[in-house]
Amino acid sequence: MTGLRSDLHEVRMAASYLRRGMTGDATVSLFVRTLPVGRGFLVAAGLADCLAFLEAFRFTGDELDYLDSSGIDAVDLEDLRFTGGVRAVPEGRVVFAGEPLLEVTAPLPQAQLVGTALLNLVTFQTAVASKAARCAFAADGAELVEFAARRAHGPSAAMAVARASAIAGFDATGHLAAAHRYGLRAAGTVDHSAVLAFGDERAAFRAFIEDHPDAVLPVDTYDTLAGVRAAIESGRPAGVRLGSGDLGELSVRTRELLDAAGLHDTRIVVGGGLDEHGIAALVAAGAPIDVFGVGTRLGVCADAPLLDSACELVDYDGRPVAGPSRGRTTTPGAKQVHRGTAAEGDVLATRDEPVPAGREPLLVPVMTAGRRTGPVRTAAEAVADACECFRVDALWLPPETRQLRGARPVPVRLSHRLAALTTRVRENGGRTTE
Amino acid sequence: MTGLRSDLHEVRMAASYLRRGMTGDATVSLFVRTLPVGRGFLVAAGLADCLAFLEAFRFTGDELDYLDSSGIDAVDLEDLRFTGGVRAVPEGRVVFAGEPLLEVTAPLPQAQLVGTALLNLVTFQTAVASKAARCAFAADGAELVEFAARRAHGPSAAMAVARASAIAGFDATGHLAAAHRYGLRAAGTVDHSAVLAFGDERAAFRAFIEDHPDAVLPVDTYDTLAGVRAAIESGRPAGVRLGSGDLGELSVRTRELLDAAGLHDTRIVVGGGLDEHGIAALVAAGAPIDVFGVGTRLGVCADAPLLDSACELVDYDGRPVAGPSRGRTTTPGAKQVHRGTAAEGDVLATRDEPVPAGREPLLVPVMTAGRRTGPVRTAAEAVADACECFRVDALWLPPETRQLRGARPVPVRLSHRLAALTTRVRENGGRTTE
Repeated sequence: MTGLRSDLHEVRMAASYLRRGMTGDATVSLFVRTLPVGRGFLVAAGLADCLAFLEAFRFTGDELDYLDSSGIDAVDLEDLRFTGGVRAVPEGRVVFAGEPLLEVTAPLPQAQLVGTALLNLVTFQTAVASKAARCAFAADGAELVEFAARRAHGPSAAMAVARASAIAGFDATGHLAAAHRYGLRAAGTVDHSAVLAFGDERAAFRAFIEDHPDAVLPVDTYDTLAGVRAAIESGRPAGVRLGSGDLGELSVRTRELLDAAGLHDTRIVVGGGLDEHGIAALVAAGAPIDVFGVGTRLGVCADAPLLDSACELVDYDGRPVAGPSRGRTTTPGAKQVHRGTAAEGDVLATRDEPVPAGREPLLVPVMTAGRRTGPVRTAAEAVADACECFRVDALWLPPETRQLRGARPVPVRLSHRLAALTTRVRENGGRTTE
Repeated sequence: MTGLRSDLHEVRMAASYLRRGMTGDATVSLFVRTLPVGRGFLVAAGLADCLAFLEAFRFTGDELDYLDSSGIDAVDLEDLRFTGGVRAVPEGRVVFAGEPLLEVTAPLPQAQLVGTALLNLVTFQTAVASKAARCAFAADGAELVEFAARRAHGPSAAMAVARASAIAGFDATGHLAAAHRYGLRAAGTVDHSAVLAFGDERAAFRAFIEDHPDAVLPVDTYDTLAGVRAAIESGRPAGVRLGSGDLGELSVRTRELLDAAGLHDTRIVVGGGLDEHGIAALVAAGAPIDVFGVGTRLGVCADAPLLDSACELVDYDGRPVAGPSRGRTTTPGAKQVHRGTAAEGDVLATRDEPVPAGREPLLVPVMTAGRRTGPVRTAAEAVADACECFRVDALWLPPETRQLRGARPVPVRLSHRLAALTTRVRENGGRTTE
């Protein structure tokens, strides 16, 4: 099922466009209008799913029957495929407000039909990758494991959170399906229920050390430090997990106990309601923590659950257009981002103007005539590519843009040509005859 | 793929349990510890997906190979199926903090393996249904349409938001795939891009009125009231949509213009950043609005994105157990909720104690020996059943529990037997030999 991953209004509009021969090329641009308060940057994610969706796009017989029975004339939709092109910012790259994450150019009915699905895939994944990057900056080199599956918004969200956080600096995931599909390292601890089932901490710890030599033991079922002593007496645990109480203080006491027992290699894992701010506080306090487990607050983007994304028609039949501005940044026409140094800032330009020397075009062609361009990449390779993009861009980001609170985005200005076009289109009520 | 919809720690724990013959029956209980601040109730949702997941549960050959290659001895998992029983609160029913939404009783390894997936399905859908119910109470009889697909957290979340909001009082969804699968009414407007593509409001409006007589026209591409006049001059629009500006004031002016033109049946639809609070403010102001469109803020549960759910082992091998309390409500043993009048409040009881006359047991058997009990229901019928449950329970809820801010939940007390058991288990460090 792909065609019905649309809203009703999109199908109706596409039907009207087809009926009226309005099949000229349209470009829709997907971007985020404003960054969440205090945030400095976004990390692009979700593109791979978009391309898979577009390649598979069609209405099945069952879907066409449903549309017919709903009073929508679906005859023109029967053979509809996505035959357009896509230019996009590669996953893992850093972007800012107003910069297109992707642009689709296709006959108007096609461009209209795919908007909801593209927003659905990009908005959430970009939000999670952006938050994961903040966690990675906060962790300052400590290991990060994603544990969001239990409260992510359904099965596909659980997969997407693991993937998006892996792109932006996480080292492992607890979710096996995602580890398998995306080639990620799986990691996990043991939960308190094992202590209850065995009836005793030591019995549970001995069993897990024997069965899984790299198991991380939950020491806070009853009293945390007593639990650490039980873990020490149970063998040589690979790690212990602290999930409640004053994690900073407890990690110090735990390290002392482990070191006193000669267990210098036993790692301290902490988790429980953490996000980038909790991690930063523990790091700032010098807590001897080796691994941070991050779950629900990452998976639901708890402190910024809304990303103000839009997928707008910017060009139809060679004519740049712009929606209502209402004080928002809405610029007409297909675009390109010219990236230079962070100090210079980005330039948002029209698609076809020359890229100045020393600047790099951020959007690259990723699909032509409905087929992905470039070498075929496995799901795991695509994630690895995106990780590399993020590693490079993370070094490019200045400290004031990376900081967790009151961050300053890298400035984005319009090129002279785009500024002039924007003025012309606004003066003409949203459209130009250029 | 179902077996890998687990976290690594679950598979490892299950492997250890199998190896050690710890296959006695376990009961795990899924509940929400605390309600979001100011909220009075939850609406149960997600059960149908849980039952489908449990019936299909197995590790595929590919998954077993993956586990083997990851160093997890998967031989015991090869033939593992879910053979247990489930008791649950029917979808659409109102529940409160601490009350089980569902309880699974199965051999310990099975009960351990399914926890992440059940939490993933129930937590989010219950959060959305609960917020949707608040929107329904706020709308006070006006029609509600769900438009969250574009920013819900991925494809399965888009489906789940439509379903969960339909259960809790919404009248229609914009998302066609969900309308099709769950038998919901599809509804939608036309978006601004049509005005840009046609190059003119009147041309676009005339086309859509002709092609789709029930189309709702977007009148705020440029100036809203000028847009209303253009809609009036374009024919007899079924509806107009206001999506920006002062919606209360604009709806009054729009109604005046429509009525002056004799268009008493043309409906006013509003949308754009609405949630229960926005709806309540418009209703309180007497705005003549026929339909509220609710999107992102519902779909991501913007003001309460975290629901503090847990899936805990409460009984193993005939022995009630309870996890660490740490000041939280954690009660041992399989349970039942005895519901009376809202004034009496609910009683949280042990599973097997008698239900007093005049009270109703809230959890009912829904799966036995790994198979759903009761009549086979289609996806649409299951939603219709849940809608009916919610309609009844909505009338049961007292006003102080329904209110949007500072709501008072219906009180829940422990039965004498459960209170005594809880004390006994706590005194015994989390377990009892009962």
